[in-house]
Amino acid sequence: MNIQSILEKKKKGLKLNKDEIFYFVEGYLKDEVKDYQASALLMAICIRGLDFEETSHLTEAMIKSGDTVDLEEVEGEKVDKHSTGGVGDTTTLVVGPLLASCGLAFTKLSGRGLGHTGGTLDKLESIAGFRIDLSREEFIRNINDIKIAIMGQTATIAPADKKIYALRDVTATVDDKSLIASSIMSKKLAIGSDILLLDVKVGSGSFMKTVEEAEALGATMVKLGYEFGRKTYVLLSNMDEPLGYAVGNSLEVIEAIDTLRGQGPADLKELSMAICSKILLLSGISSDRKEAEKLLQEKIDSGEALEKFKEMVSAQGGDPSYIDDVSKFELSAIKREVLSTGAGYIKEIKALQIGEIAKELGAGRATKEDSVDLGAGILLNKKIDDPVEEGELLATLYTQRESILESAVKDLQSAFVIGDKNQQKYELLLGEVGREDV
Amino acid sequence: MNIQSILEKKKKGLKLNKDEIFYFVEGYLKDEVKDYQASALLMAICIRGLDFEETSHLTEAMIKSGDTVDLEEVEGEKVDKHSTGGVGDTTTLVVGPLLASCGLAFTKLSGRGLGHTGGTLDKLESIAGFRIDLSREEFIRNINDIKIAIMGQTATIAPADKKIYALRDVTATVDDKSLIASSIMSKKLAIGSDILLLDVKVGSGSFMKTVEEAEALGATMVKLGYEFGRKTYVLLSNMDEPLGYAVGNSLEVIEAIDTLRGQGPADLKELSMAICSKILLLSGISSDRKEAEKLLQEKIDSGEALEKFKEMVSAQGGDPSYIDDVSKFELSAIKREVLSTGAGYIKEIKALQIGEIAKELGAGRATKEDSVDLGAGILLNKKIDDPVEEGELLATLYTQRESILESAVKDLQSAFVIGDKNQQKYELLLGEVGREDV
Repeated sequence: MNIQSILEKKKKGLKLNKDEIFYFVEGYLKDEVKDYQASALLMAICIRGLDFEETSHLTEAMIKSGDTVDLEEVEGEKVDKHSTGGVGDTTTLVVGPLLASCGLAFTKLSGRGLGHTGGTLDKLESIAGFRIDLSREEFIRNINDIKIAIMGQTATIAPADKKIYALRDVTATVDDKSLIASSIMSKKLAIGSDILLLDVKVGSGSFMKTVEEAEALGATMVKLGYEFGRKTYVLLSNMDEPLGYAVGNSLEVIEAIDTLRGQGPADLKELSMAICSKILLLSGISSDRKEAEKLLQEKIDSGEALEKFKEMVSAQGGDPSYIDDVSKFELSAIKREVLSTGAGYIKEIKALQIGEIAKELGAGRATKEDSVDLGAGILLNKKIDDPVEEGELLATLYTQRESILESAVKDLQSAFVIGDKNQQKYELLLGEVGREDV
Repeated sequence: MNIQSILEKKKKGLKLNKDEIFYFVEGYLKDEVKDYQASALLMAICIRGLDFEETSHLTEAMIKSGDTVDLEEVEGEKVDKHSTGGVGDTTTLVVGPLLASCGLAFTKLSGRGLGHTGGTLDKLESIAGFRIDLSREEFIRNINDIKIAIMGQTATIAPADKKIYALRDVTATVDDKSLIASSIMSKKLAIGSDILLLDVKVGSGSFMKTVEEAEALGATMVKLGYEFGRKTYVLLSNMDEPLGYAVGNSLEVIEAIDTLRGQGPADLKELSMAICSKILLLSGISSDRKEAEKLLQEKIDSGEALEKFKEMVSAQGGDPSYIDDVSKFELSAIKREVLSTGAGYIKEIKALQIGEIAKELGAGRATKEDSVDLGAGILLNKKIDDPVEEGELLATLYTQRESILESAVKDLQSAFVIGDKNQQKYELLLGEVGREDV
């Protein structure tokens, strides 16, 4: 076998067998297959496609390229939740404690933020003392003790995916359904959870521009999940505006705490409830959606959900007093209110642009080596469908970077599309994909 | 403009404009477009195709990536001949002197051999003293004086093609008609000839496996030639066996001399006559094929053609006595006769395999840095359709490499396919492509 014959086959639109796909993935990781050969194959895959069997082999090859996290020692049903990358999306910090308070084991490995997407690890580090570098033993002990732990995803998980993804990013081979599905699923399936809930973002701020594309991606991921023994479900959620009002690390943690206290933004709560109730159904804890939502509301009202968050913070070395007094979160020194230059209704808040502005303000990284200003970000004051007057507050910016402030103000104003009242109300939940029997 | 958007377009099967194609070619030559981006684009091109306009832009971009050789100072009609790479193909050394003896200016830049294909420069260097590194002034002076000069193609001709070709070779993106046509034509069109005759090889020993493919390639090259102001014609010739009996540098020069003397192999003469008479028609020197062939035969019979060869050798510093006495060519010390292990008729002589064996014997290069044993090679004793007895001589090997001799003998025996008498006689000339009005 050699890479040339594999390239020839996919160029002609022929199906690759398991050995060929493993040869490519293993060879590329070892630099025996060169960048320029891998990129040619990725381009051929984007044009010719991979069928489900090929996608499954690719996923397996990427899982096997690194370590897997065996969670056999974790008691009870283990759940994982993943989003395809939104702006201002702090759902994990709401969903995790909520599910843990319902008795499920929330076992999550998270990444850092890159580009316009925030990372759960960065957010958690805005709590003084919080440690994300748990050992495997600590991770499992914490889950068994308090039903929740969130730790950093090591580079040893699916390293081939990491290398292939970096190449896709610079060769216009990102937007293929099979490549996206295998990339996401290889990282998720490397971890031994029982239930996997995937939140696929749809809209201007995400890879998937239409519901149809997102459904097709979701269907592939659900099939892959079951193929590898996971109960898998996909929700499609709208990313035509950022989720919630907060974009930035400390700001988003505060918003998650508010939501666990029953006082958060409606959309963040709606998405969190949808994710959690679907997981409760998959686990068998609840038998219908209404029952699930009732249980979740009880956990919020009783304070048990928030208590779980606090337990997790304590167990991972963080200062739990931050949860009771969110004024302890340090926001960046420069605070700047941005006013509307137009009047009417908010039609769209360009999520990608908001994410980019937050990054510029210091909340995100342009490259992996950059450090993050945890107190920087944007607090929106308006959401889609809200009426707005000229001179009214659109958002507040937090930063330490005086020099970029004026351009950030202008960019933020242009991220708000203001016009006539929308004909249809903004819908957050756009669809779902699961097995028919679920 | 950026390479990502160009990749996106071709990935989707959209047409690239001139600026985009120049951006790619110029950027790749400057390393601003990376190998892995170029290979992804080449793969997209192989699958999606280039239309004629794109192919023309690509050709132009590659021509303009380097120097062009202006032949304005050359008097009379300038002709160039190119073959797509055969085994044992010494036609250039027959055609050049023949055409020069008819009064046409034969202006050829040649390459060195690589892989299984011999190079005209290496062949000529088997004549003691022969210099291929003429200055531009010498090249033009020689042509004006004696109507013929053959010099080395410098690296400054179409350097982008050179770089792109090397990448295609390792990414399974060689066999695209538009890429092949633009690669060949960019080098040929960089030189200011008036008439261009292309000999496209068809069969197991060449890129083009079928006449249909070769015709399609030929049609694109003819159209490109006229687009850039050259009278262009394509002949398709069979490469199901090596051309002539000789494979190897000195051996092939001797065969060319024999042919110019009227004593060469029938197939080499047939192809040379076909090429030359087509050029005589294109130039207007002859008005029909019969007249052209008569003129060519006169030039052979009178010794004028051979005399031209001698003049060229002298003008380029070579020892002309080699032409009168071919025993001066030094053949490699080890001479080994290979006998047939079967009986019947020769059905095929695998040209690619013969080329590879000749390379192993020392006649060719595995990498550009290898040196060549000019006296090494293979002298065939049988051609397709010949009857053969067991134990009869198939070929004679010449080499200095004792160690590989036994495996070369076995390989050579297996390159001869022996069986029943062929139903149809082997055809050398398989078709031609030109403008309808030619």
